[in-house]
Amino acid sequence: MSHIDERVAALRTLLEKHDLDAWIINGTDPHQSEYVCTRYRTRQWISSFTGSAGTVVITKDAALLWVDSRYFIQAQQQIAGSEFVMMKVDTPSYPDPYDYLKEQLSEGSRVGIDSATLTVSAKASMEAAFAGKLEVVPCTDLLDAIWLDRPAVPSNKVVSVPNDIAGFSAIQKLTMVRLAMARKGCDYTVVSSLDDIAWITNLRGSDISYNPVFLSYLVVGRQQAWLFTNPDRFDAETKSLVSSDFEILDYEAVVSTLSNLFKADDVIYYNPDKTNLLLFETFRANKTVSGLDITTDLKACKNETELEGMRKAHLLDGVALVNFLASLDTQNGRYTEIELSDMLKRQRKRSAHCIGESFSPISGWAAHGAMCHYSADEKSNAKVAGNGLLVLDTGGMYTFGLTDVTRTILFGIPTEEQKRDYTLVLKGNLALANMRFPEGTCGYQLDVLARQFLWQQGLSYFHGTGHGLGFRLCVHEGPHSISPKPLAVPLKKGMIVSDEPGVYKEGRHGIRLENILAIKEDVKTEFGQFLSFEVLTICPFERTLIDKNLLTEAEIAMVDAYHQWVYAELKDLVDGTALPYLQRATARL
Amino acid sequence: MSHIDERVAALRTLLEKHDLDAWIINGTDPHQSEYVCTRYRTRQWISSFTGSAGTVVITKDAALLWVDSRYFIQAQQQIAGSEFVMMKVDTPSYPDPYDYLKEQLSEGSRVGIDSATLTVSAKASMEAAFAGKLEVVPCTDLLDAIWLDRPAVPSNKVVSVPNDIAGFSAIQKLTMVRLAMARKGCDYTVVSSLDDIAWITNLRGSDISYNPVFLSYLVVGRQQAWLFTNPDRFDAETKSLVSSDFEILDYEAVVSTLSNLFKADDVIYYNPDKTNLLLFETFRANKTVSGLDITTDLKACKNETELEGMRKAHLLDGVALVNFLASLDTQNGRYTEIELSDMLKRQRKRSAHCIGESFSPISGWAAHGAMCHYSADEKSNAKVAGNGLLVLDTGGMYTFGLTDVTRTILFGIPTEEQKRDYTLVLKGNLALANMRFPEGTCGYQLDVLARQFLWQQGLSYFHGTGHGLGFRLCVHEGPHSISPKPLAVPLKKGMIVSDEPGVYKEGRHGIRLENILAIKEDVKTEFGQFLSFEVLTICPFERTLIDKNLLTEAEIAMVDAYHQWVYAELKDLVDGTALPYLQRATARL
Repeated sequence: MSHIDERVAALRTLLEKHDLDAWIINGTDPHQSEYVCTRYRTRQWISSFTGSAGTVVITKDAALLWVDSRYFIQAQQQIAGSEFVMMKVDTPSYPDPYDYLKEQLSEGSRVGIDSATLTVSAKASMEAAFAGKLEVVPCTDLLDAIWLDRPAVPSNKVVSVPNDIAGFSAIQKLTMVRLAMARKGCDYTVVSSLDDIAWITNLRGSDISYNPVFLSYLVVGRQQAWLFTNPDRFDAETKSLVSSDFEILDYEAVVSTLSNLFKADDVIYYNPDKTNLLLFETFRANKTVSGLDITTDLKACKNETELEGMRKAHLLDGVALVNFLASLDTQNGRYTEIELSDMLKRQRKRSAHCIGESFSPISGWAAHGAMCHYSADEKSNAKVAGNGLLVLDTGGMYTFGLTDVTRTILFGIPTEEQKRDYTLVLKGNLALANMRFPEGTCGYQLDVLARQFLWQQGLSYFHGTGHGLGFRLCVHEGPHSISPKPLAVPLKKGMIVSDEPGVYKEGRHGIRLENILAIKEDVKTEFGQFLSFEVLTICPFERTLIDKNLLTEAEIAMVDAYHQWVYAELKDLVDGTALPYLQRATARL
Repeated sequence: MSHIDERVAALRTLLEKHDLDAWIINGTDPHQSEYVCTRYRTRQWISSFTGSAGTVVITKDAALLWVDSRYFIQAQQQIAGSEFVMMKVDTPSYPDPYDYLKEQLSEGSRVGIDSATLTVSAKASMEAAFAGKLEVVPCTDLLDAIWLDRPAVPSNKVVSVPNDIAGFSAIQKLTMVRLAMARKGCDYTVVSSLDDIAWITNLRGSDISYNPVFLSYLVVGRQQAWLFTNPDRFDAETKSLVSSDFEILDYEAVVSTLSNLFKADDVIYYNPDKTNLLLFETFRANKTVSGLDITTDLKACKNETELEGMRKAHLLDGVALVNFLASLDTQNGRYTEIELSDMLKRQRKRSAHCIGESFSPISGWAAHGAMCHYSADEKSNAKVAGNGLLVLDTGGMYTFGLTDVTRTILFGIPTEEQKRDYTLVLKGNLALANMRFPEGTCGYQLDVLARQFLWQQGLSYFHGTGHGLGFRLCVHEGPHSISPKPLAVPLKKGMIVSDEPGVYKEGRHGIRLENILAIKEDVKTEFGQFLSFEVLTICPFERTLIDKNLLTEAEIAMVDAYHQWVYAELKDLVDGTALPYLQRATARL
């Protein structure tokens, strides 16, 4: 019996004890974080699968793991030798987990799930899917009893972001929240989303790799605010600063405190997509107003100080990128994928303002570059030598912002196909970045601009074109995006979004070009207020991969103008040894 | 007291009698038709407002009419002198009807509505909005008792579309429906949508202007099918033809028949967006499966015979359009708006295959062209003379298809602004028509292609880019569209859609260019199956309005290729006197 099968068997014993017929593990944390700390890697612990999304279902007879197409190969390998069976998400012959349970279990069966990771919305979806046939039973996490060395809730130190970097103090942000609460007629708002809490409090932590958040809940009342997080994680100075605006209470004290705090006629604002059942139980009887977290829009529309910080971060990042690119021997070099991302990391770290990387770097050579979510490890780490393309998708975390940039770097001599593909991706990147659009436009309306040239040639890519970015916070931040998914969130002034079309040819090469864009006001006409993009990323494109014959005059002018700007921004800042490269790379096409 | 106020007062007396606190009139018919016959012009009868959309709410104290921005001016004029108050849809300071009622009425109040025009979905939305505070009370239509000369349910003659024109016989279509029902595990499907019924039965009526449908319900069982419509509307031959596949029963017999037909363990398929409460009550206790009508997709994806018919209809239409355009004196002519649309209608009617117009023509001169939904009447009918633009949006109904085409025609000398605007609209029309896109793409993803050039110049238009079209049926047909609205309906092979960007400058001019596109299979690559468009409309663009400097080489080639095709298709078919015009109009730019 594998150690995985032993864990499944132990869980089944608990199922019987609790009179449950199935257990669902969604692999999220109590805050619905995109990335979770080790304590909440429950899906991985029970199944060995290390991917970032998937659902585990354990019944008396079966152990199943649902994963999406990104993970079909990886999941199959990682569950091999155990009793787990892989199920494919969005694949015709596979039911989804809820339908599976409805088919397999007899009427009246009880399906358990950890109430700390079950949101109000998710419970409603489950109940709708079960249509009265099965019962959803939110419980304390059964894994606690069998995962003996389960890591504790992390409580790494937090640091404060100075007001002159954040743009607004925590009390100013609380005031904004309270104004919005008043407009909604609410007495309290319950915040579970970790990046919203980090943004309001102007605090940053390190509980989750790369995402500088700290595990906590926040409740804002009309006069007071309560921050539930381990009080030991503050140094004296930060604690005294924070205590003037927030009462700091233990993370574990949240449920008991809220149960006493909320009175019968209090109106509670909450986000059903982020609020778990534990918290919801404390105000289930109250009148509620629900929607996106109040701070989601405030956080997404960067203030002038945040924008200025992001510009500075991108300038420092441009220096690091050009120093790195200039140092490469792309004709006779012998690097590994990891060496290359490490070299770039070292260039970034030369700036005292660079705190680290903003996410785990992607350095994919040749066929690895064609795997969208490739991450080099010691085993896969390929030798970068000869002719080929490297997709390098990395980012820096700076004290006043963060970056996320992808460049596709040529080693050796390109093929015509590679040049054509690169140029088509570049055309899409430019078309989106140079678009003007009326207020009210949503990301899904613009997505095709980045795809159109690929589509015309029978090519495509199967990821979104752009994600929102946080300010010295998480590299992925909502509520907006630029994607084929019909997410009805209008793009607004101050929002930041990536522009990253690509093309991935299995076994051959991958290409992705990613610039970061800030949304700004443009002309106002009789047709309304228009918006457009400011490009933040400062790094040349790979001119040897551009087929000028595929560019229009207007596109050539766009590339030249971008390169002239890159040169002007960086010429006095890059290493002297990098200047010849910068000049060559940014010369007119 | 105006006659409108008298009607409102009479309705209020009935409200009191039925213990109701408010009455809602949504202005739809029992089939949720886009256009309704006179019997169901309830909104107009109670308020005088003649627009195609709006909601009336009558309470003890107030009479209100909600309309969208298209109708702000018209509605205000039409309700003037009555107690009606206009409310603006999607306008910040105006609540929607349900919120208004929730605010104005005391808890427990009863809101009545005609159950024949209330769909299952609409009732659910009302109940969600009322949140338990108000009660929704579906009733028989109170207007019946006070609208003394209310027109009867129409029962104009129906005609049969021969199988060689429809492509499939009614029994073949019933078989397709039954196969889909079997896959869904259903015993019956209930169809309320009039164009779906016309499509399945291969019958056409004339109960509603321009929309060749007939008032009816259809229920398809595993072996039998029941068509509820006035049996007197069939001639003997048609009746005998239809009777082999359908049992014909009275329209009014639907509820009593279904109540007896459905047994307890029957599973019913229905469309909650189309099924009214009267019908729903007959199977409320049954197990149901719900979704779009089964035939909606079958009908939308035209078969080869239907496509061939549509091509022939567009060829005849092109002949009529070119004969019409060639006959115009655009320098010294003296026409009225109505004369021009009548001249085109006469050209269409020269073909024996032309049954009539497919919708009420739009002929808008100068400032009238800037009013998207302008319809010339005797009072507004403008003199078309001097310099200016005419927007002419018309369509023909043919025995084997229908057309819908908009051309913007220059009279006299154009301004630079008119040429620029026309060219920007043309660029959008071409960009969409020439796009290739992967299977699974939805209309909202393509919409921006038609807008992008206008947006870049701070211009826009506030309607969708394209609607689906029926086959010798309704000119507007779902489920697909090309619009900024995030309607998650993938475009499929055989679907037909319009491509009609425009620009409307209030008080000055309007421009719209509309071609009809059919979706066809294109290349299949490692990225999947691609689709593209076949242009069906055969009519030159207005070359004197094209500013060549604003077109790329590729766009000039697109216009030239289109014009060469138009010339080749029409040269042997148009009047001899029209040939010189056709040659001039389709010469290379």
